Amino acid sequence: MTDIAELLARRERLFGPDVPTFYKNPVHLVRGEGAWLWDADGRRYVDAYNNVAHVGHAHPWVVGAIAQQAAALNTHSRYLHEGVLEYGERLIATFGNRLDTFLMVCTGSEANDVALRMARAMTGKCGFIATDNTYHGNTALVSQLNARKPPIGGRGQNVRLVPAPDKLRDGREFARHVARAIDSFEEEGHGFAALILDPYFANEGFPTLPKGYLDPMASIVRRAGGLVIADEVQPGFGRLGSHFWGHQRAGLAPDIVTMGKPMGNGYPLAGVVARREVMEAFRKGFGYFNTFGASPVAAAAGMAVLEVLADERLEENARTIGQYLLDGMRTIEHAQIAEIRGAGLFIGMELADAPQGMSGGDLAARVVDAMREAGVLMGRTGRMGQVLKIRPPMVLNREQADLLLERLGDVFAEIHG
Amino acid sequence: MTDIAELLARRERLFGPDVPTFYKNPVHLVRGEGAWLWDADGRRYVDAYNNVAHVGHAHPWVVGAIAQQAAALNTHSRYLHEGVLEYGERLIATFGNRLDTFLMVCTGSEANDVALRMARAMTGKCGFIATDNTYHGNTALVSQLNARKPPIGGRGQNVRLVPAPDKLRDGREFARHVARAIDSFEEEGHGFAALILDPYFANEGFPTLPKGYLDPMASIVRRAGGLVIADEVQPGFGRLGSHFWGHQRAGLAPDIVTMGKPMGNGYPLAGVVARREVMEAFRKGFGYFNTFGASPVAAAAGMAVLEVLADERLEENARTIGQYLLDGMRTIEHAQIAEIRGAGLFIGMELADAPQGMSGGDLAARVVDAMREAGVLMGRTGRMGQVLKIRPPMVLNREQADLLLERLGDVFAEIHG
Repeated sequence: MTDIAELLARRERLFGPDVPTFYKNPVHLVRGEGAWLWDADGRRYVDAYNNVAHVGHAHPWVVGAIAQQAAALNTHSRYLHEGVLEYGERLIATFGNRLDTFLMVCTGSEANDVALRMARAMTGKCGFIATDNTYHGNTALVSQLNARKPPIGGRGQNVRLVPAPDKLRDGREFARHVARAIDSFEEEGHGFAALILDPYFANEGFPTLPKGYLDPMASIVRRAGGLVIADEVQPGFGRLGSHFWGHQRAGLAPDIVTMGKPMGNGYPLAGVVARREVMEAFRKGFGYFNTFGASPVAAAAGMAVLEVLADERLEENARTIGQYLLDGMRTIEHAQIAEIRGAGLFIGMELADAPQGMSGGDLAARVVDAMREAGVLMGRTGRMGQVLKIRPPMVLNREQADLLLERLGDVFAEIHG
Repeated sequence: MTDIAELLARRERLFGPDVPTFYKNPVHLVRGEGAWLWDADGRRYVDAYNNVAHVGHAHPWVVGAIAQQAAALNTHSRYLHEGVLEYGERLIATFGNRLDTFLMVCTGSEANDVALRMARAMTGKCGFIATDNTYHGNTALVSQLNARKPPIGGRGQNVRLVPAPDKLRDGREFARHVARAIDSFEEEGHGFAALILDPYFANEGFPTLPKGYLDPMASIVRRAGGLVIADEVQPGFGRLGSHFWGHQRAGLAPDIVTMGKPMGNGYPLAGVVARREVMEAFRKGFGYFNTFGASPVAAAAGMAVLEVLADERLEENARTIGQYLLDGMRTIEHAQIAEIRGAGLFIGMELADAPQGMSGGDLAARVVDAMREAGVLMGRTGRMGQVLKIRPPMVLNREQADLLLERLGDVFAEIHG
């Protein structure tokens, strides 16, 4: 048995306090393969949480691509490299014609930091809108959009957080809040630059929304001369099963798309795709250069991910295993299960508050910890943490789905009792 | 022959305009080893520029460490991992006792973005000072410090750029400018949070400074209750030959140290080391989490770099080959050579303006392009780009140094006419 307490003490000594871990009893992982993870004591877990290892933990094709390119050359974009161009061209082909230019960075936070400045460069304005229950990253600028923990130094007057779709299931009402925020920017002299959202509203608990929900918002943003930024860090790269990008599923035509976690299967690769004139406004305004961003190794990792997604038909797997999980979860009985929803391999189970008992958020926390003890890693999301979140590597197979369903049924049965 | 014009056209189509390349005739690199690089036509170059490949291009020990860890596991710091702790503990041991906590990120820009907010969290103030000829990174916040190209949306009133040591070789005068900036922050209500500098002043052309140059500045910053941030992206990791960190050579005791490029030999790894109370103020204030930052693969890459530095005695190599280069460069004769200076493998040759001829900056540009054609990659820096910059991988050997010196002599002889 590894000594978890000792590892936690070493962490606190080295990293300082408040470095978050998952679970009351944190997991000490040492190995992964597909959607399996192993801890230091040899215990195996189904990974139903990690979207970074998008095509599976330690996928040999991706590891090989990284190793091979790192053994040949790893420089930056002040030199020319064909691999970087080939990767970018292949990635761009997954978008419509409007979104045809690409900028490579290392993290989703960097991508959103750039995207917000692109909007500023394009519009000359500085007002930004996000939802009041979101997270887009950790740079000084992007943390201005944090709904849950305010940024260091406080939130600027040029940022408005509008009620998220988890509260407003009517798209016209959502749009009215956006319109009010835009008006206030104009009144206060900031002007309106952009609205940023995750088109799947993952942090908001991915509520089920009617078709066309975002249309009224989009036309208001357009009329006001602002841009729409789609943060695809969570829904992108085929996870939703039906569309390669979340905004395509939502019927939204963004001006800028940002992407991160799954892009390099763990290699620090993220990116911004934008309409040409938006990219031009930014490139000319700032002369952006990112040393590690457009490296040959990053491109090799990104290309390998696209190749595996296609070769192993992982969008199809997300669709079929996702539906299998949805169907299975719907057979679990518990008085507090309010809704089971999702798309592809991004599935949620919303838990209601018990009339005279546990809140949905407390129940979800208990379920997540019990599942960890039962050998399945999952998370929770939503405003009160009341939505169980299942967002596994895209290679989750039937055996692993069965194990997840069986353990989830057991855990709910026990909490019943 | 690869078609450079076609690659440039593909780049502009994919990335948009104004994506910087080196040299009038950009280099299309395909392979590297040690301090050698090869282009697509099989031509070999001495790399006298790239500090990212700190222990040499494609170093097999680093490539192996990355490949091995990527094949086992690549997750993030919400799980426990010993490799991450072992790396951080070894890195921290290179600092004095005061600097004993560590935060891992992916890029030097992210590191400085965090460092500035640490100062803000610690002091509760928001005024930042940098030199007027520097670059610390590309996020929205950090680009506020850019001296050469103003940030998108303009520079905030809470940022002051003071005259850099390339203009002020007197440390007391430098400190007086800092004191004036601090006073103006107090008058305008921003308060003073921190001064950030590269202790080697690499972007400022690394002028030769008297011992104790930074002492008057440091005591003024302390008295004002502000912090000193040392940006070690360029001088750190033993490059200067005499000390592992630039601030140690400069006799400066910073509160926060940031590091980047050389840290993972090309793997996107960067970091912030800080006094415990500074780290605590930040961690408690924000709850920072960086998905790719503290990954087992990043730690494996970083550890491999520290191991190679020690095993191959690369600080010693930097000292001896650096001195050999300095001595050799001093035998080159040209009327515009004003000064040859440097430490370890970070060497500059300052070129003066010709009385009735070429400026030092124009001459340096000609030399850099001619050296590229002659098979040696180098750069230039300084306020007018008048300082030839030699900052090769730490493994530069005698053969490569000789080749560099021979070509540099030839190029200066030709420009003589």
